[in-house]
Amino acid sequence: MTKNFLINGSSEKGLNPFDRGLAYGDGVFRTFLVKNGCPLLWMHHFSKLSHDLNTINIPSPKENLLLKDISLLFPSSGSFVGKIIITRGVSERGYSYPDNIKPSRILLKSKYNRIPKTLYETGVTLEVCNTRVSNDHDINGIKHLSRFDNVKAKLELSLSAFDGIMLDQEGLINECITSSIFCRYGDILITSNHSRGGVYGATKAIVASKVKQLGLKMKYLNLSLKELKKADEIVITNSLFGALQVTKINNSSWKVFDLSKKINCLFNEEN
Amino acid sequence: MTKNFLINGSSEKGLNPFDRGLAYGDGVFRTFLVKNGCPLLWMHHFSKLSHDLNTINIPSPKENLLLKDISLLFPSSGSFVGKIIITRGVSERGYSYPDNIKPSRILLKSKYNRIPKTLYETGVTLEVCNTRVSNDHDINGIKHLSRFDNVKAKLELSLSAFDGIMLDQEGLINECITSSIFCRYGDILITSNHSRGGVYGATKAIVASKVKQLGLKMKYLNLSLKELKKADEIVITNSLFGALQVTKINNSSWKVFDLSKKINCLFNEEN
Repeated sequence: MTKNFLINGSSEKGLNPFDRGLAYGDGVFRTFLVKNGCPLLWMHHFSKLSHDLNTINIPSPKENLLLKDISLLFPSSGSFVGKIIITRGVSERGYSYPDNIKPSRILLKSKYNRIPKTLYETGVTLEVCNTRVSNDHDINGIKHLSRFDNVKAKLELSLSAFDGIMLDQEGLINECITSSIFCRYGDILITSNHSRGGVYGATKAIVASKVKQLGLKMKYLNLSLKELKKADEIVITNSLFGALQVTKINNSSWKVFDLSKKINCLFNEEN
Repeated sequence: MTKNFLINGSSEKGLNPFDRGLAYGDGVFRTFLVKNGCPLLWMHHFSKLSHDLNTINIPSPKENLLLKDISLLFPSSGSFVGKIIITRGVSERGYSYPDNIKPSRILLKSKYNRIPKTLYETGVTLEVCNTRVSNDHDINGIKHLSRFDNVKAKLELSLSAFDGIMLDQEGLINECITSSIFCRYGDILITSNHSRGGVYGATKAIVASKVKQLGLKMKYLNLSLKELKKADEIVITNSLFGALQVTKINNSSWKVFDLSKKINCLFNEEN
């Protein structure tokens, strides 16, 4: 059987069930495309991984070690999805842990189920979820493993929805279950500021750093659903599908403009 | 080496790292004492486990299967801490999962680090944490694996604090990091109603069901810190230490009364 994971560089054994990633969601993760053995947008993913680990005081593994894992697990041809999970490590029962605890380094390989190409032309439908993002305002938009909110939100979605909008505790727009969301009003591009939790994703950081190339100005603001309806266009992004135009949210609809195409060009430049 | 875990009844291999317990905290757990091979307060723990699993649509394992696991892993003499983790199971990457997904059943054995006996006489100190309980009002106080809030709260505590009070998103008292909290005002015993998240623990359910034996009436109410200060006495409970009197919270202090002793008697009756 082809191996599909490495734990601390080895595929011999499964995860120690005393790992704090399982016990408490005490760790972070990144999901990314691996094409012909190369992790796409790697610089951004490694930077985000280090940022997130640093925020919650888990030592980051060396970049070389992660790249070595990737070269061992992924073949040199074909497209796959890679997922890196770094947990605080294994500890005895209880929320405390010893000072010398060693992080666990997990790499997973999955099939890449490409979304239908037509969606890049037709755009996608979103729904607004009842489940809200927890108020993690104090941890800088990190992507930790405690994602039960997202599991709950996903369970709510009807089959016709591509993704779901998650509001924050105040009822303002935060992010989608699996993607970041951007609303354009004239030459202003608005996205949430994570002052009330949610993940500040790698693709969001890329759009933010290159917003001038789009001829736009970025503004970080938590919009209401009423304000969202007035947007000229809406785009969602993540590391697997890139950027997609949103054409329908509940009873509101939008025509397909070209912002998602421009953003996909930005992403391609990065690889 | 003595085995200290069973995964689906076997100690051969570690956990499949594609398990959704690790990926998303998508599962629930129970922690309990095992004395001379017997899981204490078992009826309450199994009932709470089934309730929690049912709430999030994960099939509950048969009681016999869990008891068989316990008999295999724990020796017939001595005191240990048992932990049962049930996750939704193993799935491919992404929040979705197939209809026929099979839950993972994990049993862990840990040392029982008894708290100093003197604490039952002197009482304990609490601190109020900045980290708040996430607003999981829609899942009935279940104890899921997404516990990063609790990890954060624990990191805040100074060494002199036995446990930390966690407030809800409105700033009202919800629970402690590792225990339930009860405040007595005359013959009224107040505990939080979980209308804004937090865990409705097994020991809380026992106190609620036997409150008449304490000569008290139970009221479910989310108290402010200001109201807390006016309590005649305060007690915290969990399955490992039982009940403890609280004698200090920040600048407020209480004398040791006998409510914790009475509650410990109730717990003993249950075994």
